[in-house]
Amino acid sequence: MNPTVLIVMGSDSDMHVMEGTALLLQEFGISYDIVIASAHRTPERTIKLAVNAEKTGVQLIIAGAGMAAHLAGVLAAHTILPVIGVPIDSSPLNGIDALVSTVQMPPGVPVATMAIGKAGAKNAAVFSAQIIGLKNPHVAKRLRAFKKKMAKEVEKKSKALRKHNP
Amino acid sequence: MNPTVLIVMGSDSDMHVMEGTALLLQEFGISYDIVIASAHRTPERTIKLAVNAEKTGVQLIIAGAGMAAHLAGVLAAHTILPVIGVPIDSSPLNGIDALVSTVQMPPGVPVATMAIGKAGAKNAAVFSAQIIGLKNPHVAKRLRAFKKKMAKEVEKKSKALRKHNP
Amino acid sequence: MNPTVLIVMGSDSDMHVMEGTALLLQEFGISYDIVIASAHRTPERTIKLAVNAEKTGVQLIIAGAGMAAHLAGVLAAHTILPVIGVPIDSSPLNGIDALVSTVQMPPGVPVATMAIGKAGAKNAAVFSAQIIGLKNPHVAKRLRAFKKKMAKEVEKKSKALRKHNP
Amino acid sequence: MNPTVLIVMGSDSDMHVMEGTALLLQEFGISYDIVIASAHRTPERTIKLAVNAEKTGVQLIIAGAGMAAHLAGVLAAHTILPVIGVPIDSSPLNGIDALVSTVQMPPGVPVATMAIGKAGAKNAAVFSAQIIGLKNPHVAKRLRAFKKKMAKEVEKKSKALRKHNP
Amino acid sequence: MNPTVLIVMGSDSDMHVMEGTALLLQEFGISYDIVIASAHRTPERTIKLAVNAEKTGVQLIIAGAGMAAHLAGVLAAHTILPVIGVPIDSSPLNGIDALVSTVQMPPGVPVATMAIGKAGAKNAAVFSAQIIGLKNPHVAKRLRAFKKKMAKEVEKKSKALRKHNP
Amino acid sequence: MNPTVLIVMGSDSDMHVMEGTALLLQEFGISYDIVIASAHRTPERTIKLAVNAEKTGVQLIIAGAGMAAHLAGVLAAHTILPVIGVPIDSSPLNGIDALVSTVQMPPGVPVATMAIGKAGAKNAAVFSAQIIGLKNPHVAKRLRAFKKKMAKEVEKKSKALRKHNP
Amino acid sequence: MNPTVLIVMGSDSDMHVMEGTALLLQEFGISYDIVIASAHRTPERTIKLAVNAEKTGVQLIIAGAGMAAHLAGVLAAHTILPVIGVPIDSSPLNGIDALVSTVQMPPGVPVATMAIGKAGAKNAAVFSAQIIGLKNPHVAKRLRAFKKKMAKEVEKKSKALRKHNP
Amino acid sequence: MNPTVLIVMGSDSDMHVMEGTALLLQEFGISYDIVIASAHRTPERTIKLAVNAEKTGVQLIIAGAGMAAHLAGVLAAHTILPVIGVPIDSSPLNGIDALVSTVQMPPGVPVATMAIGKAGAKNAAVFSAQIIGLKNPHVAKRLRAFKKKMAKEVEKKSKALRKHNP
Repeated sequence: MNPTVLIVMGSDSDMHVMEGTALLLQEFGISYDIVIASAHRTPERTIKLAVNAEKTGVQLIIAGAGMAAHLAGVLAAHTILPVIGVPIDSSPLNGIDALVSTVQMPPGVPVATMAIGKAGAKNAAVFSAQIIGLKNPHVAKRLRAFKKKMAKEVEKKSKALRKHNP
Repeated sequence: MNPTVLIVMGSDSDMHVMEGTALLLQEFGISYDIVIASAHRTPERTIKLAVNAEKTGVQLIIAGAGMAAHLAGVLAAHTILPVIGVPIDSSPLNGIDALVSTVQMPPGVPVATMAIGKAGAKNAAVFSAQIIGLKNPHVAKRLRAFKKKMAKEVEKKSKALRKHNP
Repeated sequence: MNPTVLIVMGSDSDMHVMEGTALLLQEFGISYDIVIASAHRTPERTIKLAVNAEKTGVQLIIAGAGMAAHLAGVLAAHTILPVIGVPIDSSPLNGIDALVSTVQMPPGVPVATMAIGKAGAKNAAVFSAQIIGLKNPHVAKRLRAFKKKMAKEVEKKSKALRKHNP
Repeated sequence: MNPTVLIVMGSDSDMHVMEGTALLLQEFGISYDIVIASAHRTPERTIKLAVNAEKTGVQLIIAGAGMAAHLAGVLAAHTILPVIGVPIDSSPLNGIDALVSTVQMPPGVPVATMAIGKAGAKNAAVFSAQIIGLKNPHVAKRLRAFKKKMAKEVEKKSKALRKHNP
Repeated sequence: MNPTVLIVMGSDSDMHVMEGTALLLQEFGISYDIVIASAHRTPERTIKLAVNAEKTGVQLIIAGAGMAAHLAGVLAAHTILPVIGVPIDSSPLNGIDALVSTVQMPPGVPVATMAIGKAGAKNAAVFSAQIIGLKNPHVAKRLRAFKKKMAKEVEKKSKALRKHNP
Repeated sequence: MNPTVLIVMGSDSDMHVMEGTALLLQEFGISYDIVIASAHRTPERTIKLAVNAEKTGVQLIIAGAGMAAHLAGVLAAHTILPVIGVPIDSSPLNGIDALVSTVQMPPGVPVATMAIGKAGAKNAAVFSAQIIGLKNPHVAKRLRAFKKKMAKEVEKKSKALRKHNP
Repeated sequence: MNPTVLIVMGSDSDMHVMEGTALLLQEFGISYDIVIASAHRTPERTIKLAVNAEKTGVQLIIAGAGMAAHLAGVLAAHTILPVIGVPIDSSPLNGIDALVSTVQMPPGVPVATMAIGKAGAKNAAVFSAQIIGLKNPHVAKRLRAFKKKMAKEVEKKSKALRKHNP
Repeated sequence: MNPTVLIVMGSDSDMHVMEGTALLLQEFGISYDIVIASAHRTPERTIKLAVNAEKTGVQLIIAGAGMAAHLAGVLAAHTILPVIGVPIDSSPLNGIDALVSTVQMPPGVPVATMAIGKAGAKNAAVFSAQIIGLKNPHVAKRLRAFKKKMAKEVEKKSKALRKHNP
């Protein structure tokens, strides 16, 4: 079966960040494919990914990249599928370069940008589930369960904290 | 009929930015409602909007806010619908405050962030069309037409430019 | 007896910062409660904390959070008690995201913002003592003693320095 | 009668910002005095203001300053009264210099920092009302009325908006 | 005859900046073509420009773009010709977004980045002349004359200044 | 007689800023010369100025420049006279480029950096007076008078303010 | 034989960055010389390098420097050869000081700026090869091979990734 | 004998930075005293240092401080002696807070600001020597020797580098 989400990252060194996306998509029961493609070093490959995604039933694309992060923007230029961008902190500029290179898209070609790094990678999966949950009630149900679990964990930790600080 | 998209903005002074969202949604044939609600000045109203949106068939929420822009994040905290954030430049900090307040969401509660200001407001509409286009072929068709029109306009302007700079 | 100060933090990983607030409040003889609540993951819980604080005699609320730190702002939206915000450095952006998300509040709903991280956490306690000291002479007395002790320590260190650099 | 709040600003050119503080304090029925004193050009005067404030029954000090804004910090160094800082945007750096010069206080000497500029000036008054409201029920009552009025205005504007965008 | 330099800009609104490149290239006697192409709105057109440039004898490409400026990077991805990037200030972020999106290229695909805006547009022409001057003595000669003229103008202005400030 | 201070600026467009230096030096009774020289466009001229300054009895050099402001640093590299740098706001980056280009000098070759723009230009004159005042009691006396006048003006303005806000 | 490229760095502590330039130039078969010269500590030496470069057949100069990085700008001021700047991250400011000090050159004296640090050092070599490749077909051929190798490596890594994440 | 230079630092934790000033002053044969005084924790002590400095023959004051670094500014407010500021990187903001708090002084009260951290601490000593060298030929002579030694070291390191990279 074809994957619902395509995860693309600019370099294999981004894997330790983007695996957070993959793990959460599994938790939501969403199928995905994960590939490396660089907007600059493999431009044709990147374009092909965007163009083929639409044909093969991919519902949305998640792109993680650092520095002058053009990956999400280049993918978005070649498809009408929603593209979610994860700016990665891989230069001395703390990811601020990747953030503005991803989010400051010109009118007409949006990239839905998440937080820099691991938080953003996880949220790319949650946001995907929110989109897919619009038509897939199983995913919507898991999302609600996920939200409840998060809330419970916070409460549990709060109680534990109080015990040690009575 | 209930609107598909709910546009929320933090203040009526944000209207000159967010009308760009409304106009483009009309172009894509997507119904919407537009309201003012402040995460800080009308917190209950804001929460009610998020909670009711899901019940009344809204598919996604677009939130435009400036300064310590908590609006999109607060809406996202109270719904599993996708929330798109438009940071608005309404303080001496050029919108960088609104940008990081919108995009740097913690793991579990994403806000899909667009560019600061008018470019972002327009792209919030385009991104909405990309999500809705996943199940609505009419919207998908208009999106493709929109992309082509954009491309043609660039080419037309390029020709006009050359005429004046032969 | 009900606590005078309510310390709220967005995540248990913020404890190593916010314990500085707790320890100093003890030094000033000010009672407090400390809990975890996330503006995004446990919004209802957060609101309840703000609403109940007023009823149970809490005098002021201290909120520590990182990234797009909405915690202090959300608490402030639901109470007329003074809310003190401590931006926490927990993302690649060095806490600048938490700083502007906490301080750049729109007119009408202030958050009294402290320095980023441990310095701010300590100062949240000192500032609380300054407010409570306005009507509680015991706290005012301890504040004066605290100020003197600080000054003496500086002088002592200066003398020690001179000995080693005669 | 002695004023409850002392407003200090670094230069008369800051008046167009700090008058927002004065007007709101009047609305809350809080008496105030307003003076100009520079941490750098009139250091003795500034210190005297801080030292005398405590003696004459002032409850808290609000300081507005731009550039390397040391005013709030210098006042805070000479009193145990709460000091609220308003960073003013009066250099090419958009007030980011005033913001960090005001908020990044070392442990032991807090300045409760508000947003840059007019929003912060207004919030300095609201925050003062929140502190004074802790023991003055008249001020607390006005604060609640103020919060309600704000909420109503947002709702009114939202209705007006909808009329024009049906 | 085919042009030596290809100037590409992302939008016709960038013309008031990039005309500085064109005028200086004329002064150096270097032929050029000037077109509009957007990395995001006309991706195929942009790629074609890069691929064809090499075939038709273009020696180098100058790309001016604002916001998440991917134009220079995308062109560089599809050619081995030198690509010079001019970041343009066309968003609330003062061109810092365009600067880092242009300069922070990953290893392997350089973009030679100039200053933001008009200064950078002029320098793109001068740098082109420096490259072309390596093999074209006429251009090298004009470059030397240009440098001398600049120096003389400074001296002339300095004398004029002194006259008015004796 | 040879001037005591040499004011150098990178461009005649910097004159509206640097005239503030000249006017204040006159007030302190310090002789000066004012010239235009660019570190980049007239490097030899700039070096000559630095080298000659020492020979002709100049006591210190003030350099005002914008963008990648190398002027002060280049002058400092060619002399042991104290060099004072005034960063000028003449690019989209608000003078932050000129500030760090001036202040972040490597160990061994200092530039005494003033605030960005007009405030810095005036302070370059005051700081010069402070240095010259170390051996010239007339200048020291005027400095003291200047400090008193500043303080009086603040007090006068404060009184005027109070009259209008009784 | 005289070298084609002159690599200059401001300090021997920059060698761990700039060796990336040297190694890649070797791969492209481009001869180079590598020296240390500081714009501030050895200004005459730096100028001599720029002036002599042109005479001895050097085709272009690569300058790596940190902090208020004036090296590339000073070299560019004394030659018409193309100068490529590599900003080095060697201060608490993460290289943002070196970046703007290198890139924000005034009109007339360009420095072709690369990314901060090691990525930029490598790209300085690639960009040199692109310039030299304009007249040297051997270098152009190696450039094409280099581009292909980069693309293949990405594809290989992508396959390896998939194996471990089937 | 009274010291010529007074080094003040805000905290003993700044000693590892400011010892660079002390060591270089020794090399230049300039006497100094080194003390700890905080603008915020020991304001009276700080003021006394500034006021006494002038009386006891101190020629200039060097102040090193981090965060909202008011130390140099407060000293400058109480003396007409030249004050040199060294911003120290001691908060999550990388010293940018200390830099702008030190350099952005309002007109009338300058602080001669050096680079952030160790480079700045060393340069504070060199700049002091440049001021003192104006009337003390021994110091001027040592300064010239220092400059020559620096230049020679660069050349020596350059030769060593070449040996290993022939």
